[in-house]
Amino acid sequence: MSARLQAGAELAAPSAFDAPLCPQPVPDAPRLTAAQGELLREISILDEYGERRFIHIPAERPLTVFVDKRELVTLMTLGASPELLVLGYLLNQRLVASVDEVESITVDWDVGAAAVKTHGGIIDLAEKTARRVVTTGCGQGTVFGDAMSQLESLRLPDVHSARIRQSTLHALLEQMRQRNSIHRKAGSVHGCALFCGSQLLMFVEDVGRHNAIDTIAGWMGLHGVAGADKTFYTTGRLTSEMVMKSAQMGVPIIVSRNGVTAMGHGLAEQLGMCLFGRAANRHFLCYTGFERFDSEPEPQRTAVRVVAG
Amino acid sequence: MSARLQAGAELAAPSAFDAPLCPQPVPDAPRLTAAQGELLREISILDEYGERRFIHIPAERPLTVFVDKRELVTLMTLGASPELLVLGYLLNQRLVASVDEVESITVDWDVGAAAVKTHGGIIDLAEKTARRVVTTGCGQGTVFGDAMSQLESLRLPDVHSARIRQSTLHALLEQMRQRNSIHRKAGSVHGCALFCGSQLLMFVEDVGRHNAIDTIAGWMGLHGVAGADKTFYTTGRLTSEMVMKSAQMGVPIIVSRNGVTAMGHGLAEQLGMCLFGRAANRHFLCYTGFERFDSEPEPQRTAVRVVAG
Repeated sequence: MSARLQAGAELAAPSAFDAPLCPQPVPDAPRLTAAQGELLREISILDEYGERRFIHIPAERPLTVFVDKRELVTLMTLGASPELLVLGYLLNQRLVASVDEVESITVDWDVGAAAVKTHGGIIDLAEKTARRVVTTGCGQGTVFGDAMSQLESLRLPDVHSARIRQSTLHALLEQMRQRNSIHRKAGSVHGCALFCGSQLLMFVEDVGRHNAIDTIAGWMGLHGVAGADKTFYTTGRLTSEMVMKSAQMGVPIIVSRNGVTAMGHGLAEQLGMCLFGRAANRHFLCYTGFERFDSEPEPQRTAVRVVAG
Repeated sequence: MSARLQAGAELAAPSAFDAPLCPQPVPDAPRLTAAQGELLREISILDEYGERRFIHIPAERPLTVFVDKRELVTLMTLGASPELLVLGYLLNQRLVASVDEVESITVDWDVGAAAVKTHGGIIDLAEKTARRVVTTGCGQGTVFGDAMSQLESLRLPDVHSARIRQSTLHALLEQMRQRNSIHRKAGSVHGCALFCGSQLLMFVEDVGRHNAIDTIAGWMGLHGVAGADKTFYTTGRLTSEMVMKSAQMGVPIIVSRNGVTAMGHGLAEQLGMCLFGRAANRHFLCYTGFERFDSEPEPQRTAVRVVAG
């Protein structure tokens, strides 16, 4: 794949493509082809006081992915960076092993389609997509069987070279807290971010956290960004497939504002990853991978005791 | 299908099967075959104060569904009521038109499998499952193309016969607030409930809201419960496929603790459904279907003004 995705509807400025690698932050890099229309839609609601007023909700639209003219899947997306989403989807589903197999991805919002051209065709596409594992999250997300079976081949960096300090974690969370986001305006979206230390490299929101993480995978794939020294942040739950995707991206440390499921926890333990959940402001729980974490304990809460008399 | 699902691992007491129809509440009816092991798992965590302690997280396990010995899909589930989940999945995906097509559903947790026997086989199963629409929610949930195409044939009750009063909505929310749930103990699960007026008929939690709503669909299907006079409650977002599933179940009113996406909103408008979001305590937003809602406005907030001097 050339360094540039062929964007159908409109070409982004070169600066958006030529995203510098870590450690320069490129928070606005994800957008390649902007979706037609806005990311927000205004609707009229009635509240508990009987008042009619306007609020914003996130827009979403179907994007049907065709690989070498064969329909693969329809993704429901906010549509902020569809080419990266499609590329990341192919990578995370292990339908392509590397970005080099992809010649171009062309998005046409008029027909809601993303056309992927590969150099040599995807071998055994039908076979690879025949087994569906419907996953947690929404409960029925999808990874293809093949992706799960390749887990054992994953290698993450050792605990000495990939670790995180509590102060770095705090700095990261503080950036997420301050961020002006669609979630803040309209709710009902999930955000994902990629950090190098406490430096934000990439932030993306979508209607689902799977689309968001796939978009990050696409960005990493396109620009050849390695995951070993990165931290992945998500507002969503740490289910098995979110953990799996992060592992596939080579990112050993995950931070979530939300909780963890048993299989997400088990998988992270097995892979030697470090998971943080319920992480916001100065709070968090480290679920597993303690050996990657340099704890700098907060002062204990002092119980305020009112003594009578 | 006989009135009784054939439960593999253990048969529930008859009372759990012979669930009375509306308006008698049967909040503990969902469980047919309890999953092996507990619904919660205890793990050791490290918090921001450097303290190690134990917390509970929801357990989840894979359940692979075989229809007439053909592998269909693997669901990740908490496993509280797997037969109802599988039945509801088949119904909501429109793979079976009614419960009568199903002879038995047998769950074996030792191998994590649910074996569905149909009376006559599912016609065109391969064709029906060939087109996947990956939906919102997690972003990549799955409904098969066929389910979406049948939307236009849905008929919901008119606005005079299916409506909700604000006081009923409050009563419903109060019951959800007080409910002792896995979510309260462990977080990271979604709950769904079915109400008749303010009376709770069925409540189920699962790792994903799709599994939870499918379980309710299975319960309704098994017991022949109609949806026209019911209200569906969910902790999850109102995405297009949650709205669609509710419509398929014949339930015209949906209440969510969470928000709405643009396609969920659009679909509900199109189908003439009534959607409430951000609903908790005495707050809510009515997004659409105002004509089904009898507003009983709360007194306006009185601004507290501190007058100097």
